[in-house]
Amino acid sequence: MFDTNKKVGVLGGGQLGLMLLQAAIDWNLNVKIIDAADAPCAPIAPEFVEGSLQDYEAVYRFGQDVDVLTIEIEKVNVDALEALEREGKKVFPQPHLIRLIQDKRTQKQFYREHGLPTADFILTDNRADVANYVDFLPAFHKLGRDGYDGKGVQRIATPADFEKAFDAPGLLEKAVDFEKELAVIVARNEKGEMATFPTVEMVFHPEANLVEYLFAPAEISTEVEQQAESLAKKTAEALGIVGLLAVEMFLTKDGQVLINEVAPRPHNSGHHTIRANVTSQFEQHWRAILNLPLGDTTAYTPAAMVNLLGEEGHTGPAHYEGMDEVLATHGVFPFLYGKKITKPFRKMGHITVTDNSLEKLKTKAEWVKGALKVVTK
Amino acid sequence: MFDTNKKVGVLGGGQLGLMLLQAAIDWNLNVKIIDAADAPCAPIAPEFVEGSLQDYEAVYRFGQDVDVLTIEIEKVNVDALEALEREGKKVFPQPHLIRLIQDKRTQKQFYREHGLPTADFILTDNRADVANYVDFLPAFHKLGRDGYDGKGVQRIATPADFEKAFDAPGLLEKAVDFEKELAVIVARNEKGEMATFPTVEMVFHPEANLVEYLFAPAEISTEVEQQAESLAKKTAEALGIVGLLAVEMFLTKDGQVLINEVAPRPHNSGHHTIRANVTSQFEQHWRAILNLPLGDTTAYTPAAMVNLLGEEGHTGPAHYEGMDEVLATHGVFPFLYGKKITKPFRKMGHITVTDNSLEKLKTKAEWVKGALKVVTK
Repeated sequence: MFDTNKKVGVLGGGQLGLMLLQAAIDWNLNVKIIDAADAPCAPIAPEFVEGSLQDYEAVYRFGQDVDVLTIEIEKVNVDALEALEREGKKVFPQPHLIRLIQDKRTQKQFYREHGLPTADFILTDNRADVANYVDFLPAFHKLGRDGYDGKGVQRIATPADFEKAFDAPGLLEKAVDFEKELAVIVARNEKGEMATFPTVEMVFHPEANLVEYLFAPAEISTEVEQQAESLAKKTAEALGIVGLLAVEMFLTKDGQVLINEVAPRPHNSGHHTIRANVTSQFEQHWRAILNLPLGDTTAYTPAAMVNLLGEEGHTGPAHYEGMDEVLATHGVFPFLYGKKITKPFRKMGHITVTDNSLEKLKTKAEWVKGALKVVTK
Repeated sequence: MFDTNKKVGVLGGGQLGLMLLQAAIDWNLNVKIIDAADAPCAPIAPEFVEGSLQDYEAVYRFGQDVDVLTIEIEKVNVDALEALEREGKKVFPQPHLIRLIQDKRTQKQFYREHGLPTADFILTDNRADVANYVDFLPAFHKLGRDGYDGKGVQRIATPADFEKAFDAPGLLEKAVDFEKELAVIVARNEKGEMATFPTVEMVFHPEANLVEYLFAPAEISTEVEQQAESLAKKTAEALGIVGLLAVEMFLTKDGQVLINEVAPRPHNSGHHTIRANVTSQFEQHWRAILNLPLGDTTAYTPAAMVNLLGEEGHTGPAHYEGMDEVLATHGVFPFLYGKKITKPFRKMGHITVTDNSLEKLKTKAEWVKGALKVVTK
């Protein structure tokens, strides 16, 4: 039930936390955030605590005076969250799910055990182990823990690539011959009500392995759209998650939808919903974790999203080149994360682009990429 | 030009300031706010200074380290703003315009001098003076300075009402036989570029004299729409204002559009733009005062806005009755201002309602009024 006196703690004060804070303003939510002192949320959060998300004591202390806890990043101290949960705090997503999802190995095993379609894989213990599976190539070797933003994944096409495999527990995933990468964000509240955002299509930067463009809605058949939504809901239900679940999927060349990986929180693939949909993914996250009715996910307009990455060759105080030009263009909405220092490929912001056709979106998104650059002076 | 290092100061930390802060998050604007310690903006503003907006020293000191100054309420110390302007600070809206608009007498004279159609009026010095104008009735007596939210206006229908007139400088305005009250928000930047939001229709609460409902777009002919937009632009241009100008107008029964009064800032008649339009009035205000290109004002959907006023008979800590029900209804978006104490008719929030026809909007707005109440427990 809605209660203005409820206090909500968020582990993580990066850009996702910032967009959560922005959405929280509508309902005057009492939000407290923990992260490093220079986090984007620090100047905006109603209450900000400096501390490490991975430190048991810091997280445990942080949770003492809140009613509900949530995360904007998975790399947090789950032991502390479990202790807080045992003491009666609401922690959403639930700590055991964060633990499960933190490790790509247990994540993939979960899909297999629950009959959720996913690419075939073999668990591996170390680099030497990976070399046993020549017959499984081409494949991707994925680090079990601590991979993020494209780090922790290596393509192993031939035995010559085995040296690139991680020398740590991981999994070898059969390369999927896919046509598109899709994503569906599903929200689920404590009552078990679910709502999905329309399926989006992601195009990755070949080098940085980050989402470079995103189009919403995805250019797919109604049948594939239904498959994707249904798979996202099945996954959320199998996990029993409370909160948002971003489900990344492959659409194979023979029309199958396979789950790739999930994130139990707001996600890069839903940033356009701030500008293009009736309810944003951030408002939806609050609705889900506060056990409120879920919002209408309908899109007002087709949209694209371009990540604004730090320009190559520039490290230092960020300067945004081309903002005036971009702001002069209808249907182009930059969102800057307020990170003081830019580095090559660092996520410094995103730009939502709206237009009435996918063709126009693609042209505009391509233009925006060249028009707005994060550099040092 | 867009510059992330620019610091913007806002005089006033009420709900308008709060919505300005929310919009400022997209571009990581460096915003500093001054107001009383319990102002809604205090927990959210990147920098908050406790002080009185009407105190010369407080405002002057506040403005020392900012590059641009703006307001979210007209009742501020204009002398301090003028001193800051003389020292080279950008102050938008310009102090001389705030001064002009602060006093309804100079405001009305401005319309008359510039040929901007407005209801006929007579300046009055005191209560006794008002009684000289029996032939001018029915009329409204308006206090020159310090009227707000419906306070400072008295209907003088017959000589028996003269005792209700204000015993202070004011103006007697001939009662207009109007069909509707309209409002247009126009933005103007330093380059002189202008953009208007679609005309809205306001319905006032008969007792509190506050906007009770608002419908966008107004149910008017294209011709009247053009008259209203053109009058708003002419007024902004005659003033030479930089920033937002909310222009309230009467549509008379014989089809004339008359200017009623203006506010040089974001306005209650534009709150629905947060949810219903491509660019909100708050983002538009930043664009205008930072000399950025103005945003697209197109509406995605028809909308209504209902002010959420403190329930009669309730004074004390605010409790929001019916939030869950309201949040369960698609196209209903409550915005709470975070004021701790509710009082009868105090503006505690607003609710934007969206639907695809004016008929449905009216039904939904009527329902919302009953469904969500601000009470004490």
